[in-house]
Amino acid sequence: MSFDKLIERIIELKNPTVVGLDPKLEYVPAYIQRRYMDDDGGTLKASAKAIFAFNQAIIDEIHDIVPAIKPQAAYYEMYGHYGIKALEKTIRYAKLNGMYVITDAKRNDIGATMEAYTNAHIGTVNICGNEIEPFGADALTVNGYLGTDGISPLLKVCKERDRGIFVLVKTSNPSSGELQDLKLADGTPVYAKMGDMCEKWGADTVGKYGYSAVGAVVGATYPEMLTELRKRLPHTMFLVPGYGAQGGGAEGLKGGFDENGLGAIVNSSRAVMCAYKKEGCDERDFAKAARREALRMRDDITQYINLK
Amino acid sequence: MSFDKLIERIIELKNPTVVGLDPKLEYVPAYIQRRYMDDDGGTLKASAKAIFAFNQAIIDEIHDIVPAIKPQAAYYEMYGHYGIKALEKTIRYAKLNGMYVITDAKRNDIGATMEAYTNAHIGTVNICGNEIEPFGADALTVNGYLGTDGISPLLKVCKERDRGIFVLVKTSNPSSGELQDLKLADGTPVYAKMGDMCEKWGADTVGKYGYSAVGAVVGATYPEMLTELRKRLPHTMFLVPGYGAQGGGAEGLKGGFDENGLGAIVNSSRAVMCAYKKEGCDERDFAKAARREALRMRDDITQYINLK
Repeated sequence: MSFDKLIERIIELKNPTVVGLDPKLEYVPAYIQRRYMDDDGGTLKASAKAIFAFNQAIIDEIHDIVPAIKPQAAYYEMYGHYGIKALEKTIRYAKLNGMYVITDAKRNDIGATMEAYTNAHIGTVNICGNEIEPFGADALTVNGYLGTDGISPLLKVCKERDRGIFVLVKTSNPSSGELQDLKLADGTPVYAKMGDMCEKWGADTVGKYGYSAVGAVVGATYPEMLTELRKRLPHTMFLVPGYGAQGGGAEGLKGGFDENGLGAIVNSSRAVMCAYKKEGCDERDFAKAARREALRMRDDITQYINLK
Repeated sequence: MSFDKLIERIIELKNPTVVGLDPKLEYVPAYIQRRYMDDDGGTLKASAKAIFAFNQAIIDEIHDIVPAIKPQAAYYEMYGHYGIKALEKTIRYAKLNGMYVITDAKRNDIGATMEAYTNAHIGTVNICGNEIEPFGADALTVNGYLGTDGISPLLKVCKERDRGIFVLVKTSNPSSGELQDLKLADGTPVYAKMGDMCEKWGADTVGKYGYSAVGAVVGATYPEMLTELRKRLPHTMFLVPGYGAQGGGAEGLKGGFDENGLGAIVNSSRAVMCAYKKEGCDERDFAKAARREALRMRDDITQYINLK
């Protein structure tokens, strides 16, 4: 009912990073695309098969060095229900390989509807007495704009099934400040207020490393806010996007971690998935190139923090 | 590139309402459940087939009196990729029957990821030269917490393909005020600021009825804000949840409409889907009961507005 399971895996592998699996078809090496397009032509079904094969090979190569994956739901949804099946299979395959899975879906709704999202992604659905896990992720990203009514159904399942959530607090994109940085009447920016709500929502789920089951998404592209929020939200684990491709450097991440090198997990998606393109190696070497980039990223980040 | 298509259908049917298709399995009459559970047992697949059959019968009965349906993505996602297939089929079936389809998914992300959601739900995906429409909805609900970066990809497709979006502004739930009602330093509440952003985002997509392609979700449960926002956001079409089951009465909706009875579309989900339970009629009469409730709702709401 906290993020202990994830944190233990981070400590074990000495690696506070997560690989984002956002498999646009153009990232998938041509030889894999051909393998499936030959069977089915240029269809959603063939695309979904190709991206699952791509994910599988990357998971094979990184599961012993990276604690977690973060599949981004949008890149599966774009292939319709075939894509969603590839998402289910990706989650299952990563978990079979001992990885922690954070589904990045930024879901949000209220009451019974939020319960449906919760049960779908991190819970179970009861059908005529059968308890079925539709997706089976360990954690889910969510959007807190709707307030406590949108979060309560998640908290219930986090407690019952030892799951976690990451609430959008300060996102990594250039225009994130349009709403998130606005100052409220008492001088608090909107993002800090959202952060305070995370502390409150997580209050009774704090685990042995001091972090609750309610984390926050805080972008690597705003290092000063990352540092400020680490102090403000001592029990809130951070999921940090925007490292690398979006411009956030490793040294700037330092402020997101506590004195034990914990409290944050940094995501990289495209740089890992497309490492073979950047390296210019044979495309059949893509998974090994992903591993090399994952190791480089680990070393780049851990040089600045105190993870033992 | 505005909401003209939806508005014309509203005028034609003299009905500013939308039926939410949020088919929890418990809403589906037992005889339909049995039909599919007999084949496949209590599985996600059987559930998805049952909810599609349920939706289909309701669409058959309401398509000539109600302009639009609003499937809620969560209730399909909870049945995994089988559920998503039922969502695709529901959208297609409603469109074949001349209905306007608003997918209520409250999606949100940035840049290329938001582009993926956009292409999935209201756009097309290009696979090896084939342009494929994964879901094919006419409009999508979205969450604007991430600012313009999360909205721009949608606007592009709204313009190119005559689609629309509804941005969460003031949601219908009791705790919506925790963030949305907070006053900014200049005295503007967060929800009004989000509303102002909708006006800005939609500025160059205003159609012949005066409404842009960027609508707003404003709950029926806060009638005074509905009235205030109607004045503040003259080009923003409202999608209004919370009528009936959540406690919003018909008279309170009045302020959400303009002097021509346009500018808002009111949703009802459970009251229509479960009308047969409330009526206490034979469960095999559920679709006709849904039609009766849809007509009652239309008359209840139109008595207060000036729709010609």
